[in-house]
Amino acid sequence: MLVKSQIKLTRSLQQKKYRNQHGLFFVEGKKTVQELFAANLKPHKVYCLDSKKLDVSAAKVEQVTLTELRQMSYLKNPPGVLAVFHIPKKTILNYSDWMVALDDVRDPGNMGTIIRLCDWFGISHIICSKSTVDCYNPKVLQATMGSIARVNVHYVDLNDFLRKSEIPIYGAFMDGVSVYETKLSKKGILVMGNEAHGISNEVRTLISQEMCIPQFGNKTTESLNVATATAILLNEVRRG
Amino acid sequence: MLVKSQIKLTRSLQQKKYRNQHGLFFVEGKKTVQELFAANLKPHKVYCLDSKKLDVSAAKVEQVTLTELRQMSYLKNPPGVLAVFHIPKKTILNYSDWMVALDDVRDPGNMGTIIRLCDWFGISHIICSKSTVDCYNPKVLQATMGSIARVNVHYVDLNDFLRKSEIPIYGAFMDGVSVYETKLSKKGILVMGNEAHGISNEVRTLISQEMCIPQFGNKTTESLNVATATAILLNEVRRG
Repeated sequence: MLVKSQIKLTRSLQQKKYRNQHGLFFVEGKKTVQELFAANLKPHKVYCLDSKKLDVSAAKVEQVTLTELRQMSYLKNPPGVLAVFHIPKKTILNYSDWMVALDDVRDPGNMGTIIRLCDWFGISHIICSKSTVDCYNPKVLQATMGSIARVNVHYVDLNDFLRKSEIPIYGAFMDGVSVYETKLSKKGILVMGNEAHGISNEVRTLISQEMCIPQFGNKTTESLNVATATAILLNEVRRG
Repeated sequence: MLVKSQIKLTRSLQQKKYRNQHGLFFVEGKKTVQELFAANLKPHKVYCLDSKKLDVSAAKVEQVTLTELRQMSYLKNPPGVLAVFHIPKKTILNYSDWMVALDDVRDPGNMGTIIRLCDWFGISHIICSKSTVDCYNPKVLQATMGSIARVNVHYVDLNDFLRKSEIPIYGAFMDGVSVYETKLSKKGILVMGNEAHGISNEVRTLISQEMCIPQFGNKTTESLNVATATAILLNEVRRG
């Protein structure tokens, strides 16, 4: 049986404050847990209903009851495996390739999708404004499908970071130049903005190239969702 | 005060069975309601907390209490306007442009995003297998942001439909030819598959061109989400 303090600790990691305080986060589901092990993330504890079903180094695995799992889980129907990992140290930025910068992206689903897209397109670093949703938020992790193991997410003063950048900065705007007519360099930073307000005015002044995704349907006021726009723009960056 | 039968009817429209039986569906939120009015969808009833705030023809607007609205709404915090519309008659398919076909897409969020993408890229028709999630499902409508007013969604026997098609059929597969190297014709059908299983074997035999979106990161087993893959492929179709 688990001691109460373990349950309490794990449960507390649903909140950013405690994740940062303990330097820990948790994920759920066998596949994601195994992906993070495969990516050499350092496990703190693994809890599961049936340890025989889990193909990871057994040292840290602890069998738990469904009641205990429910007390820790973020999900209504916990998938039977929950693992607590140490938040990995950030690797050094790579200025010879593309990076993605997020200016106040708030929706966990969008954040998770963007991490997964970066993994697909081989983008290793995402630079986020401090107001952007935390990448270890359980809802974000659910949407990343394990990609968090391969993409580094950094939280910085975005204005400051962009001001010091020596590589071109591209941003997505409704009224930018068509991305089809934009010369995309070999390295750069792609800035994507907040779901409701787009890129902030302050950040906008730091962008060297304002781009848009051309609209082919009736002109409606609604823009593309930030995650689908990121998908299209990263594809444009990589297709060359 | 509303009569109970009105509340019961509206509430029942959360289920596909009753939407089809009555030929009605409902949406929530001022913006979406106004977009559907602007697209000339035929209203059945409009319920709102404060009718002065709503800029639509007043004939069918009925003021309700928050309690009444809550009884009808799909949302925990109803946005104050709920409108019941008649399901529009489908317009005739346009074989001189592109269409999207969905083979068993189940997730309402994905479906809503795909409708919104079709609207953006000027695709007027989506052809769905009968097992694909209903486009008037409240969760789908929430994700479409009003695009449902401009995109026709048809539910058909997909095998039968594709077998009779005289325009090229393209499908998205993990092991297809790179979309960058695929010649995309002026008209065609883009088939996207189920979230977990992709395109079914039966449908696969009817596809003339199997395509993939090249992966640039580490080879992981996880494919792109169906909505982000649709975003990238529709962009490829339209960019020319």
